[in-house]
Amino acid sequence: MQSSGAITRREFLYRAAAVGGTGLLFNTMDAWGMGIASRMAGPPVLSGNGKGKSVLILGAGLAGMTAAYELGKLGYRVQVLEARGFAGGRCQTARKGFTLAELGGEPQRCEFDDGHYINHGPWRIPLHHQSTLHYTRSFGVPLEVMVNDNDHSIVYLENGGPLSRQRLRPAQIKADMRGHVAELLAKSVQDHTLDKKLNAEDQRLLLDYLVHEGQLDNDDLRYKGRSGRGFAVNPGAGMNPGPGTASDPLGFRELLASHVSNVYSAVQDFPMQNTMFQPVGGMDAIAKAFEKRVGRFIRYKAEVQTIRHGEKNVTVTYKDTGTGKLQSLSADYCLCTIPLSVLRMIDTDFSDKFKAAVKAVAYAPVGKIGLQMKRRFWEEDDHIYGGHVFTDLKGINTISLPSSQWQKQKGVLLGYYNYQSAAIEVSAMTPAERAEFALAAGEKIFPAYRASFEKSFSVAWHRVQYNLGGWAEWSEESRKSAYPVLLEGEGRVLLAGEHLSYLTGWQAGAIESAWQQLARIHERASA
Amino acid sequence: MQSSGAITRREFLYRAAAVGGTGLLFNTMDAWGMGIASRMAGPPVLSGNGKGKSVLILGAGLAGMTAAYELGKLGYRVQVLEARGFAGGRCQTARKGFTLAELGGEPQRCEFDDGHYINHGPWRIPLHHQSTLHYTRSFGVPLEVMVNDNDHSIVYLENGGPLSRQRLRPAQIKADMRGHVAELLAKSVQDHTLDKKLNAEDQRLLLDYLVHEGQLDNDDLRYKGRSGRGFAVNPGAGMNPGPGTASDPLGFRELLASHVSNVYSAVQDFPMQNTMFQPVGGMDAIAKAFEKRVGRFIRYKAEVQTIRHGEKNVTVTYKDTGTGKLQSLSADYCLCTIPLSVLRMIDTDFSDKFKAAVKAVAYAPVGKIGLQMKRRFWEEDDHIYGGHVFTDLKGINTISLPSSQWQKQKGVLLGYYNYQSAAIEVSAMTPAERAEFALAAGEKIFPAYRASFEKSFSVAWHRVQYNLGGWAEWSEESRKSAYPVLLEGEGRVLLAGEHLSYLTGWQAGAIESAWQQLARIHERASA
Repeated sequence: MQSSGAITRREFLYRAAAVGGTGLLFNTMDAWGMGIASRMAGPPVLSGNGKGKSVLILGAGLAGMTAAYELGKLGYRVQVLEARGFAGGRCQTARKGFTLAELGGEPQRCEFDDGHYINHGPWRIPLHHQSTLHYTRSFGVPLEVMVNDNDHSIVYLENGGPLSRQRLRPAQIKADMRGHVAELLAKSVQDHTLDKKLNAEDQRLLLDYLVHEGQLDNDDLRYKGRSGRGFAVNPGAGMNPGPGTASDPLGFRELLASHVSNVYSAVQDFPMQNTMFQPVGGMDAIAKAFEKRVGRFIRYKAEVQTIRHGEKNVTVTYKDTGTGKLQSLSADYCLCTIPLSVLRMIDTDFSDKFKAAVKAVAYAPVGKIGLQMKRRFWEEDDHIYGGHVFTDLKGINTISLPSSQWQKQKGVLLGYYNYQSAAIEVSAMTPAERAEFALAAGEKIFPAYRASFEKSFSVAWHRVQYNLGGWAEWSEESRKSAYPVLLEGEGRVLLAGEHLSYLTGWQAGAIESAWQQLARIHERASA
Repeated sequence: MQSSGAITRREFLYRAAAVGGTGLLFNTMDAWGMGIASRMAGPPVLSGNGKGKSVLILGAGLAGMTAAYELGKLGYRVQVLEARGFAGGRCQTARKGFTLAELGGEPQRCEFDDGHYINHGPWRIPLHHQSTLHYTRSFGVPLEVMVNDNDHSIVYLENGGPLSRQRLRPAQIKADMRGHVAELLAKSVQDHTLDKKLNAEDQRLLLDYLVHEGQLDNDDLRYKGRSGRGFAVNPGAGMNPGPGTASDPLGFRELLASHVSNVYSAVQDFPMQNTMFQPVGGMDAIAKAFEKRVGRFIRYKAEVQTIRHGEKNVTVTYKDTGTGKLQSLSADYCLCTIPLSVLRMIDTDFSDKFKAAVKAVAYAPVGKIGLQMKRRFWEEDDHIYGGHVFTDLKGINTISLPSSQWQKQKGVLLGYYNYQSAAIEVSAMTPAERAEFALAAGEKIFPAYRASFEKSFSVAWHRVQYNLGGWAEWSEESRKSAYPVLLEGEGRVLLAGEHLSYLTGWQAGAIESAWQQLARIHERASA
């Protein structure tokens, strides 16, 4: 837990850096038990400057632009090569006019109505990702809440045993399952079956807790439903509906047999907790805010062909994909943020060991589809405002409802978010077939789904040139063997990106990795 | 649970109204088991019109303006008397320039910086309040998420036994308590103490659930903490922090003895569930949206003095508080939305029975204070974005953090939200004393609290003229005796407001009560 003392520590570190240089800073941070950029909510505090030294950055995604921004401030001569015609890497937002052609696929042009979009890359900023939040704050990128947890959403299982093919609300499932479990344990207390495990006072306190937790009947300790699971008729005015009509709980055995309770657990996992954010108007607001500050360093449509490193510098050749011309650039250091899935295909003079490490990491097949609906039926008919519909419908995983444009006429929802083999299967379809696939599933849950559909935009990240995957997927083995090798870099070439973090697939991973590696470059350049 | 079939039902009701008039509509609604305005998300569907008939509405709060708007659309001649110089009733927002003088208190003028405000009246719109949401949608009032549930906030107890005076996170409490309880029950399964209660298959399924719910160790079924409770060192990039460092759970006995787990339960109670909304820029956006549409009907600064009703009409005298002049108005019907706490002091010719009913209802003492802080220390130091800090500090109840202006420099937080005797005690203080009271408490939880404080604005609703309380507080007894009498009205005078609902203290109660009573007026006027 972050205490307010963090500020004091940070101030101390500033002072330490001011008097002792980079090395002292690093030692001091270790002495405080702090990792760089984990408990510090900002970039590394570096003394000295980079005057007269150059860094060539490969890739203008968030890692590359973070490094360009921070190294630029230190006085380094920075150049960035970006294969695409725009900056941001995976930090993209599809809105009207956005185009994408997957490898071997037909080109898609997003035709959503003005003001509507899908964040087909990163779409969430967890409160814990203070590094990402550092830049949204510094750059004045307006944020809004992304509803990541909605007990009034829907769970729909095809294979949910006795609860199959029902539109269940998470609130019902949580209330009833925890209510039944509280009743079971409360009765165990009553029956003295816990006497060996807990003393009398603790049993009394436990009973007190269980009655509250499960809202059990005080007299017979039974769970009979609760307001939190919803009413059969909602309370209102006058005599009718007046106090409303309570609803009946789902049965304990049905819940157990359906496995549906395992969709949720006691608390949200770490990165998924409230409060979750998204930039107003689309995630690419972050990319654009960086680009505004470092765009002058970037050469667009510059596709890296070769990387050669020597004792004094690094030379990179690249193809201008507009003109087809080959050009080359040299610099004192190179920070390569190209995804390993792409880097492994580039001609380098890395050692065999390093090349093997680059090849050792798998990349996640990931698919998303945005569906523009002409009516926000999930809000109007079902009172679902944002959040995720969980389902075991093949290839869908979640249907996610937008957290912007509340109560407006239209909306773009996320029709599937699939991984692994499901993502591979669905990605083999044409964009039109993917939309049909999503509609055929969604209409099982929402009757108005198909009739409301207008336009789609889909992406399969493993088929996207210059990415070839959603994010790095480390195994326990590759974390041990390849990870330290890649972190070390080779000669004057260092790597950075979400792949060199334990926050893979998150923008914070890219930013914090860049922070670490630019600090290493600075340390070496200052030595 | 609202099913998509609701639309079909509603369409049916429209058709029923079109062919059969009001009476048929009401019967049809009963036949469907629907209360007016409970399962219908809009105003009653009324046939006919009010041409040539007049309704005098007392009070331009949400109930009064709802009635004025809907009756106006039906063609009634509508007049509204409002004691204040502005419409909205309790639907107020204090921002720069807003003034309030409590009865017997010194005048306050809100001096918050531009763009900052406190909703010192209603501040939340639950997803279930489709009536309120009907008007925000119809009127195009932009909404944003109000963070009402934040597992990363703080619980701070003075009397929390072994966990007293600690800044605990709700996520820690929920994860640990549910983890320990899951472990206890899992071991009961293992020890065969549940053999009489559950068969072998159900026990296997229960164990499966408990391991997931409490994230128990698969081998020894012990709870050893989980990511959802937070890390000691957060995961990040590189080797350090790399995967981060797990945190240790709070002890079961400490949790039990502290009673802190009872701050939360399995699911949020019905009206408190996500997704919660607030209008962008302040709750009074709703009042202003109504006022824009019905303002022409309203006479401001018109303080009702007497109500006289006869067989053919109702006559109300009022004082123009600007000029001091007495005037009177007559109409075919009167809809009185004046709070009962105020109505009981007005000179009426109601029957003794009706007068007794008006007097039978208690009104809640309620206090709120907005504190403008020059720095958003809760976000910057503690990573709390919205939500409520729960505490047993005397007279505080909750400290609530703003759900707007994320990451900006300043913010206005709610320093206390107190009821009953605490509200009465605090309300006896001057505004400056109240601010000091709030600061003295808040600084126990947030070290930066006092140093960041700039300005305050407070309200004690029981001391506010024309309200004299936060909301009606019904007892079981008064619901039986007084409620039906007041609902019935007296002669041509009908009452409406949050007090005539089971949604007391909510804007939806006012709106839905108005819907019911205007439908009754229309039914009688059409007879």
